[in-house]
Amino acid sequence: MDTTAILSRLGISHMAEAGDIAVYSPIDGSPIGRVTSHSAADVDEVLTRAQDAHAAWRNVPPPRRGELTRLLGNRLREQKHALGSLITLETGKILQEGLGEVQEMIDICDFAVGLSRQLYGLSIASERPGHRMAETWHPMGVCTVISAFNFPAAVWSWNATLALVCGNALVWKPSEKTPLTALAIDRIMQHTLSEFGDAPTGLASLLIGGRDVGAMLVSDPRSNIVSATGSTEMGRAIGIDVARRFGRSILELGGNNAGIVSSAANRELALRSIVFSAVGTAGQRCTTLRRLFVHEDIYEETIAKLKDLYRRIAIGNPLEPGILMGPLIDEPAFERMQAALEQARTEGGDVYGGERQHVAGHEKGFYVRPALVEMPSQTPVVLKETFAPILYVIKYRDFDDAVEMNNAAHHGLSSCVFTADIREAERFLSASGSDCGIANVNIGPSGAEIGGAFGGEKETGGGRESGSDAWKAYMRRATNTVNYSMALPLAQGIDFSID
Amino acid sequence: MDTTAILSRLGISHMAEAGDIAVYSPIDGSPIGRVTSHSAADVDEVLTRAQDAHAAWRNVPPPRRGELTRLLGNRLREQKHALGSLITLETGKILQEGLGEVQEMIDICDFAVGLSRQLYGLSIASERPGHRMAETWHPMGVCTVISAFNFPAAVWSWNATLALVCGNALVWKPSEKTPLTALAIDRIMQHTLSEFGDAPTGLASLLIGGRDVGAMLVSDPRSNIVSATGSTEMGRAIGIDVARRFGRSILELGGNNAGIVSSAANRELALRSIVFSAVGTAGQRCTTLRRLFVHEDIYEETIAKLKDLYRRIAIGNPLEPGILMGPLIDEPAFERMQAALEQARTEGGDVYGGERQHVAGHEKGFYVRPALVEMPSQTPVVLKETFAPILYVIKYRDFDDAVEMNNAAHHGLSSCVFTADIREAERFLSASGSDCGIANVNIGPSGAEIGGAFGGEKETGGGRESGSDAWKAYMRRATNTVNYSMALPLAQGIDFSID
Amino acid sequence: MDTTAILSRLGISHMAEAGDIAVYSPIDGSPIGRVTSHSAADVDEVLTRAQDAHAAWRNVPPPRRGELTRLLGNRLREQKHALGSLITLETGKILQEGLGEVQEMIDICDFAVGLSRQLYGLSIASERPGHRMAETWHPMGVCTVISAFNFPAAVWSWNATLALVCGNALVWKPSEKTPLTALAIDRIMQHTLSEFGDAPTGLASLLIGGRDVGAMLVSDPRSNIVSATGSTEMGRAIGIDVARRFGRSILELGGNNAGIVSSAANRELALRSIVFSAVGTAGQRCTTLRRLFVHEDIYEETIAKLKDLYRRIAIGNPLEPGILMGPLIDEPAFERMQAALEQARTEGGDVYGGERQHVAGHEKGFYVRPALVEMPSQTPVVLKETFAPILYVIKYRDFDDAVEMNNAAHHGLSSCVFTADIREAERFLSASGSDCGIANVNIGPSGAEIGGAFGGEKETGGGRESGSDAWKAYMRRATNTVNYSMALPLAQGIDFSID
Amino acid sequence: MDTTAILSRLGISHMAEAGDIAVYSPIDGSPIGRVTSHSAADVDEVLTRAQDAHAAWRNVPPPRRGELTRLLGNRLREQKHALGSLITLETGKILQEGLGEVQEMIDICDFAVGLSRQLYGLSIASERPGHRMAETWHPMGVCTVISAFNFPAAVWSWNATLALVCGNALVWKPSEKTPLTALAIDRIMQHTLSEFGDAPTGLASLLIGGRDVGAMLVSDPRSNIVSATGSTEMGRAIGIDVARRFGRSILELGGNNAGIVSSAANRELALRSIVFSAVGTAGQRCTTLRRLFVHEDIYEETIAKLKDLYRRIAIGNPLEPGILMGPLIDEPAFERMQAALEQARTEGGDVYGGERQHVAGHEKGFYVRPALVEMPSQTPVVLKETFAPILYVIKYRDFDDAVEMNNAAHHGLSSCVFTADIREAERFLSASGSDCGIANVNIGPSGAEIGGAFGGEKETGGGRESGSDAWKAYMRRATNTVNYSMALPLAQGIDFSID
Repeated sequence: MDTTAILSRLGISHMAEAGDIAVYSPIDGSPIGRVTSHSAADVDEVLTRAQDAHAAWRNVPPPRRGELTRLLGNRLREQKHALGSLITLETGKILQEGLGEVQEMIDICDFAVGLSRQLYGLSIASERPGHRMAETWHPMGVCTVISAFNFPAAVWSWNATLALVCGNALVWKPSEKTPLTALAIDRIMQHTLSEFGDAPTGLASLLIGGRDVGAMLVSDPRSNIVSATGSTEMGRAIGIDVARRFGRSILELGGNNAGIVSSAANRELALRSIVFSAVGTAGQRCTTLRRLFVHEDIYEETIAKLKDLYRRIAIGNPLEPGILMGPLIDEPAFERMQAALEQARTEGGDVYGGERQHVAGHEKGFYVRPALVEMPSQTPVVLKETFAPILYVIKYRDFDDAVEMNNAAHHGLSSCVFTADIREAERFLSASGSDCGIANVNIGPSGAEIGGAFGGEKETGGGRESGSDAWKAYMRRATNTVNYSMALPLAQGIDFSID
Repeated sequence: MDTTAILSRLGISHMAEAGDIAVYSPIDGSPIGRVTSHSAADVDEVLTRAQDAHAAWRNVPPPRRGELTRLLGNRLREQKHALGSLITLETGKILQEGLGEVQEMIDICDFAVGLSRQLYGLSIASERPGHRMAETWHPMGVCTVISAFNFPAAVWSWNATLALVCGNALVWKPSEKTPLTALAIDRIMQHTLSEFGDAPTGLASLLIGGRDVGAMLVSDPRSNIVSATGSTEMGRAIGIDVARRFGRSILELGGNNAGIVSSAANRELALRSIVFSAVGTAGQRCTTLRRLFVHEDIYEETIAKLKDLYRRIAIGNPLEPGILMGPLIDEPAFERMQAALEQARTEGGDVYGGERQHVAGHEKGFYVRPALVEMPSQTPVVLKETFAPILYVIKYRDFDDAVEMNNAAHHGLSSCVFTADIREAERFLSASGSDCGIANVNIGPSGAEIGGAFGGEKETGGGRESGSDAWKAYMRRATNTVNYSMALPLAQGIDFSID
Repeated sequence: MDTTAILSRLGISHMAEAGDIAVYSPIDGSPIGRVTSHSAADVDEVLTRAQDAHAAWRNVPPPRRGELTRLLGNRLREQKHALGSLITLETGKILQEGLGEVQEMIDICDFAVGLSRQLYGLSIASERPGHRMAETWHPMGVCTVISAFNFPAAVWSWNATLALVCGNALVWKPSEKTPLTALAIDRIMQHTLSEFGDAPTGLASLLIGGRDVGAMLVSDPRSNIVSATGSTEMGRAIGIDVARRFGRSILELGGNNAGIVSSAANRELALRSIVFSAVGTAGQRCTTLRRLFVHEDIYEETIAKLKDLYRRIAIGNPLEPGILMGPLIDEPAFERMQAALEQARTEGGDVYGGERQHVAGHEKGFYVRPALVEMPSQTPVVLKETFAPILYVIKYRDFDDAVEMNNAAHHGLSSCVFTADIREAERFLSASGSDCGIANVNIGPSGAEIGGAFGGEKETGGGRESGSDAWKAYMRRATNTVNYSMALPLAQGIDFSID
Repeated sequence: MDTTAILSRLGISHMAEAGDIAVYSPIDGSPIGRVTSHSAADVDEVLTRAQDAHAAWRNVPPPRRGELTRLLGNRLREQKHALGSLITLETGKILQEGLGEVQEMIDICDFAVGLSRQLYGLSIASERPGHRMAETWHPMGVCTVISAFNFPAAVWSWNATLALVCGNALVWKPSEKTPLTALAIDRIMQHTLSEFGDAPTGLASLLIGGRDVGAMLVSDPRSNIVSATGSTEMGRAIGIDVARRFGRSILELGGNNAGIVSSAANRELALRSIVFSAVGTAGQRCTTLRRLFVHEDIYEETIAKLKDLYRRIAIGNPLEPGILMGPLIDEPAFERMQAALEQARTEGGDVYGGERQHVAGHEKGFYVRPALVEMPSQTPVVLKETFAPILYVIKYRDFDDAVEMNNAAHHGLSSCVFTADIREAERFLSASGSDCGIANVNIGPSGAEIGGAFGGEKETGGGRESGSDAWKAYMRRATNTVNYSMALPLAQGIDFSID
């Protein structure tokens, strides 16, 4: 399938003709479209319309709101291949992963339908006779989503489906590196809204633009919720701006994710997990495996096998079957990767791979060999998140040391242990084990299911999205006490009577 | 009971002899003690010890941690009268309210005992065969509590009991206006820790001081959680500082709480509620009723009856039985009240009461008559939180207008409606009703039970404390997936195989 | 649409040619098909296959199981009109209700999809160090569903979707009065299973037959769950049989549902609710309104208006638009209704309506006028559930008396109050209010949403189906404690050491 | 401490002088008291009073009800040693276990206090505009507890605390073998009620007697809940009787609990667990380990070590320190044990131990050596629950076979696996693993914490008590929908309009 066919299938081919932002495919560096940034006036108008839309949408019964996400899921099913292909085209991730991302959108749509009949608050036992106490959850207002290039579709869907089912209006500013995917999804969303019928105008909007558009959205009090995915520095600035105006932020920032390979691990399974986690999406997932702690007894063997696997990874055009790793997103990404490898060497690292890889016919794409870097310890470069396929490997002797190294990172997103030993596994999952929001056993740190809450503490930002009760971040909690007696007892037994 | 006896009963009488901070009782302006501020070095040491204490405490089984709060509750029961009296002495609230505050401490201790066997995460259905998915909750680390003068005891206990049961260490900086209550509670806590036996050193500490001590605590990354109660401006600064370092803040800031009196209200019950809510604690609760919207059909009658009730409120020494209103906390509070009343007059308000009240033998106490201010509309002074017994009253015709006025405040803490009409009541509690964290029917906005979550959105800060699942703010969530199969299926059905 | 067209659309027209059970449409008494009862050997084989199917199905990840219900929902959407028409044809309920029943099937399918990623157990705080405690929910085995004629489709779907998502196999014995609807649904289910692909053989089966088939299923230990809807006497026998072999039963038996009309009620809304609740499905819903307690101040007016509304109800062929009430299911139903009215007269009742109604061209259908019966008190006939459109009306003075009368019934299914007074409403919903499993305010007792749990105590049988955590009845709970330490502390601090 | 001192400490020494039921201590067969059976008239009166008490108690706010259990916990703390001693005296279990049982009572009291502010129902998203949906939990009425001799105290407390906090009245019929413990507890309860102050008369009653008293309670419709602990046959009869009248039963019947010892087990830890689980309470716990499946690779070694441990178990007066096993409850128990051993031999078993043991000065006590019986397979005697310290040991090769043997029992209470292998552990806990209500890893099947739900399926009866949401069995669920709009939309979008 070529670019034109993909864009045409998604109805956005005309986008290629105008606009101030040029879009290039990382596959071969070729231009695939131009899009136009929105103006400050557009931002203002979109927020106003969103606010109005919320005022109506909050009164629509949640199960009806859920129907919107059901229809969206159906449309995504229809467009799965085309949309997955566009994701590949715009991000360079392999088609299997592009399709997986659309599948994740579909999954969360289904989840949101069920959720739309729940949004459970609690009825609570009151200490006062003739009083009923309950907690209910209400919509917040406008949810502004700021998403990154590496998951140009799924992250929006996590936020969009929950925010909509929870009764919020939606504004989306995607990465300027992946606006076409955003336009395609927005088109699907608008069609879904038409099919749905009576949704208020302005319920779900797209704003194309760079940092300025993002900044306007973040500082505007009409953005009741700002859900942002991206770098720690971006997230820190957003967190501060939103805190200043007492808004609510949901931050999903970086991750410097680690894995522990115990001597009790099933090697074969561990190795396959490690490669997928470190190399998938060319190391540009927020959950990519970046640090690996290997028990000394199996260290040499593990390194040898990893090198063998790394050597055999098929690198090339991510739309082609059999390819496991596509290009980096762009030249700066490549340069940051090389700089990190250079720093690693300086800090005592032994680098395997990492060099640019020639792919015939795609000379302008930044293809690299994934890098395996043996490090003597967790030096500064290891503790820095570099968004590239670099896996630092460090030997350990004592399990507690490995856990401590896992927790020494500034981020707290994802982590894993490979072991058949239940004691190691459970300790890793315990209060004094991994300090990450995601802690897995015998699978890598990446590839979460939508049924769990996704996110982590520390420089990962603290937000949670997707499953479990992550939906509460899109609602406000109200504690209600209803006195249906003729008396007025006070809590804590206080007596306050005017004679 | 005189001051000396109260302090002696609580074992803190020796505190009266030294220190850079002088403590005065608002009852009569007399000095009741001196306390010493902690130094920067103290702050550092306390945080280090707290961090170490957490590292041990997190491994103590939660039900054992709950035993600590059970013992604390028992000690508070023993000291209820003395501690309640000291609260009255130091804050000027009436003894009934001082005792009520201790009762609230006891209640939350009991609640925390039960909670210590729950801390429920979820086991979750996984989409992959041979995989188990679950969510668990783990301690965060150190919880720093910054509390205000008006609830010098209860607010600490809400945070302390939940934080401790959840496995955190605790650092407390109370208001410099109420350090004696804090010292008394700390003494009770330390005795409880001794009785408990094997708690780690430094698990619960007290730091006396002003803004500088608070600022050190807030900006220190070892304060994993900062739970702060106080003014919006203080909270804003804390929120920003904590966001900058990706810490977690729980903010309970001001409230500009309103009530609606419908023509369908039970008048008698409404009036009593209003007076307690507006006048209790001399209008210095964060949930104090400050704005009242009265239906035009009953407006004149309501004003007349309120004036009559206001006239009859017994003002004086809050330790004396029968007294319903004690003094304001200090002269600046008095002056801010007078300034607000002056501004109200300028903005068209008709002020009843509000003047200083002479109380024989307590000439240095700032006693006032509670003020009732009829306003033509929600002018700027009405939308400003003045921490004093001022109740602005505004007439309304249409219920929706009353709800809109309720929601026009910058804060979002508490609210109520008085009505016997189920449609008005339910609308008030619905998604398009009150936007506050607390919304009550036929009781005032103040006097929450500990079983519900306490807090609100907007300039109230967004935090929740006490009941429901507020405990989650004191823990970090971990999503775990355990692969116990021999296969490695990927989420979303992705295929990633190296030949 | 005629019978042939409906059956043909649903692919079951060939069923009309053979079988020992003749099916008649209550609309005109005409035969619409013949079906064949299954033999004892069939029952045995079906149960064996179901057991085997369960052994495989329990290992299929729940979200994949949820996909089956999603596909089922889609097929039901396609066949909504045909299936709704067949329901009308076979039960005589009006087409609006036939379609509503299919909509309910669709709703529960969607709900089950969301549920399939939840099935939440709890992780629980353990009192022992180095121990993890959790609760998980596992499939039970085979769920046998026995359904009644009046909801020949929805009741199966409530059970089927939850049971399947929860990992059980399914066996269904429908009422012998409505086998065609069952056959049509089974065909849809089998097609859905084919589309789904890899479900085990025998996962969902249909068994046609009378009491003997039901009895075999009920007493067979392979029916791990027996979910039965029907009469109290049938349910009692099933409950005993299942208890004898320690199986699990979910009983949804009769209801003798009441409503209270307070003098504070919105009359217009109450009257419309009452008529729908009493007359809908010709009074043959288990939630049909059968008893009405009207405050004396509005009694005469209410009776007059109800008579007027009853007079205007369009009775006739339920497939025709505008018709609100179709025929009774059969002649015995008609005779039981007449007997009840006769008894009512004997017990002092004043009967309005209730006589057979001639409908041109449908002389063999048992059409009746709905009956309004003014009773002096709750005599025996009032406390008996008669499955027909009879509404007993009784005057009350004191609200507490009305609640007491509500609770005097043997059944405990549904109830309601019409009032604008929040005190009456909340008292009705309180611990000393209605004793029913469903208690509504300002809507009638019938027409539940699938998001709540459905069922009631006393002779209603105690089962719950549909929403909330009703799914737990389809699973078994396991409490797990995992010791991952090297020590062996005992619960409750017991010391048990062998020297 | 001698008998007189114990009874006197608990205030029941005067009980020893009259009554138709003689109580003997299994320690030495000596009479320790006489108690009087209640008459049919007593049963009737107690139930009537309990019903009345419920009518008042249900309106007492749950947190106030929780205060009753808090006070009870405090009194039990005071009497822990005396009550634990009496339990030992009356049941023959060692003092450590007697004290453990009282500790369990105390734990559940604390748990119930916390629960008293929860009893959480759900607020649920309604599909209709202007409607509020919620689920609330209300008291059931009278909870009748029938308890067995082996846990004469704890089982009552599990039921009593939850039932009381949930708003029920309580009637207790203890085993006729342990009435003194019941009298002592009842005395503590009555004192607690006095201290509490305003509880209704008849809230908690004790009925002494045999099967006839139990039968009256079970068949009486005023026993809304019957919670029964005992043999499967007794439970079956109760289940049927309660089902007949649509009451609610909570059955905790026998267990034929198994453990699997994998070759990957930590042997030392496994052995200690096995001995405690098989020998504790002289094998008379419902969770006693009765069947052991040992991997062939470690079979011989395990048998040898178990024999060594069994040989060293100190048997004797259970009040004496160091003793690990006291007598059987009585001679019939001894005879049933011998018969089972005889049958085991017949079925190919190799019996080690099991013979009567002479204990000097206690010749009338039925002391035995615990029996270890190597069996070739699960013959009939193995699948029968014999309430005695018999541990059947069977060799296995394949883990799946061991799980299958675990599940082959008629009961479904408790089970465990000893393994360090996470795959075996997780498989044991999975949907196709153990079918028991309790499934543990690396701890024995007995000694549950109160935080989890306790009970199991199949012939164990299906009930759940103690933690998690077991409290729901003591309440009835009400689903409420409140229409606060002026419209009357029907669920499922049905149109039903009278022109």
